[in-house]
Amino acid sequence: MSESRPIGVFDSGIGGLTVVKALRDLLPNENISYLGDTARVPYGPKSPETVQRYAIELAEMLMKQDAKALVVACNTVSSVALPALTEKFPVPVIGVIEPGARAALAASRNRHIGVIGTRATIRSGAYEKALRDADGGVRVSSRACPLLVPLIEEGLLNDEVTDQMILRYLEPLIADDIDTLVLGCTHYPLLTSSITRVLKRQIMVVDSAQNCARAVEEMLDQKSLRAAPLNNGELQVALTDAADNFLNVARDALQLKIGEVQLRPLT
Amino acid sequence: MSESRPIGVFDSGIGGLTVVKALRDLLPNENISYLGDTARVPYGPKSPETVQRYAIELAEMLMKQDAKALVVACNTVSSVALPALTEKFPVPVIGVIEPGARAALAASRNRHIGVIGTRATIRSGAYEKALRDADGGVRVSSRACPLLVPLIEEGLLNDEVTDQMILRYLEPLIADDIDTLVLGCTHYPLLTSSITRVLKRQIMVVDSAQNCARAVEEMLDQKSLRAAPLNNGELQVALTDAADNFLNVARDALQLKIGEVQLRPLT
Repeated sequence: MSESRPIGVFDSGIGGLTVVKALRDLLPNENISYLGDTARVPYGPKSPETVQRYAIELAEMLMKQDAKALVVACNTVSSVALPALTEKFPVPVIGVIEPGARAALAASRNRHIGVIGTRATIRSGAYEKALRDADGGVRVSSRACPLLVPLIEEGLLNDEVTDQMILRYLEPLIADDIDTLVLGCTHYPLLTSSITRVLKRQIMVVDSAQNCARAVEEMLDQKSLRAAPLNNGELQVALTDAADNFLNVARDALQLKIGEVQLRPLT
Repeated sequence: MSESRPIGVFDSGIGGLTVVKALRDLLPNENISYLGDTARVPYGPKSPETVQRYAIELAEMLMKQDAKALVVACNTVSSVALPALTEKFPVPVIGVIEPGARAALAASRNRHIGVIGTRATIRSGAYEKALRDADGGVRVSSRACPLLVPLIEEGLLNDEVTDQMILRYLEPLIADDIDTLVLGCTHYPLLTSSITRVLKRQIMVVDSAQNCARAVEEMLDQKSLRAAPLNNGELQVALTDAADNFLNVARDALQLKIGEVQLRPLT
């Protein structure tokens, strides 16, 4: 039996398209419906209750499109709303944090892992908790990198200013002797090549978008929810408000084919 | 007759404190009530209708504190909501754009003026319109500098990364032969010394916060609304949601004495 219903993916904005890109690469037969809440971005500074409420609204909109699974392509939502979403909706719900944490543990030799993210994600301690739940002996050094999202959204992906900021943010983690670095923000995969360049030393970079896509693949297999192998997966992108400059940056950098972007205002 | 009622100042967030600082310096006897809408910042990407609605809500909250005048310490609100505010409230309403435009025209010799601001302010064309309304022959070169606000909010006020970005943003304006530069964003006065340093050439920098304060002074005199000369002006700061890191940055950089910040949630 095959399942042509779409995978519903949502984010507070456009950053979650890195997860879509990873899903497209790994699961080209799947139909994907993406919803970005550009009307209310950013979620980071909002209270957990508000973020939960917004996440449920977005998930409901995707469920109306008959989503067979929900992918939370946003670290902030993943850190505060997964239990509420899992309880409320009858389909599998997958976030970005647990898959990233698992991959980091598998990659690390010295069990000392670095995590970077927005101030909200780092403050939530969600990666630290996921890492420690899986391995009580792991050491975690985390650091908020608040300027990386604005630099990415401006398209400064291969730029000396961005390299300087990356170096400044990562220096203390390198000094701390991490051997694995988790990119704990869905924007950051757009900087993978810059980060790798700056991190000259042998540090494994774990991209939570890719690992989220792998977790989705596993889940689809377990639940027999895969699309037909001959299906040419379609991608539908909808936003709750007009897209800004960053949509073009993401589309170009990810080489993601996006047709017409739908505007789906919140009611 | 003297007027102890406060001047009500509002902004989408914390940037408007540069206007408060200019008001405190120029009008030390005035009581000031500041309201920053940190719950809904930033306004830039929101539609004009939404910004107008939010501005009226904030103004109503200040009117309940018996404000004798309203100061719109926000370029986005000034560019779209001044007429609506003036019509709705029975007290004088002063924004940041017209005073900045007037000061720039007074300063310029070659009648070629540069304007920098957020993407929303530059897109609105509000400074261009104000400049041309006052002088049909003026030339205006404007440029959005979207990374300056995040750099300021992170406190990188005297930093080589910020200097590099300033240089990159201003180079085309300098090449265009402007002789006067308007800082069209209430955050930017925190970068005045960096901008002056980068702009080695003789370009006049016009700070719209200071010029807004001068416009307020004029208006108070015209309307006989000045506080008593012996009054020790008080400053009350309220925010619609918890303050972030930037409040400390602004407080330190402006050397502004702020007592306890009140939380005044939106209803």
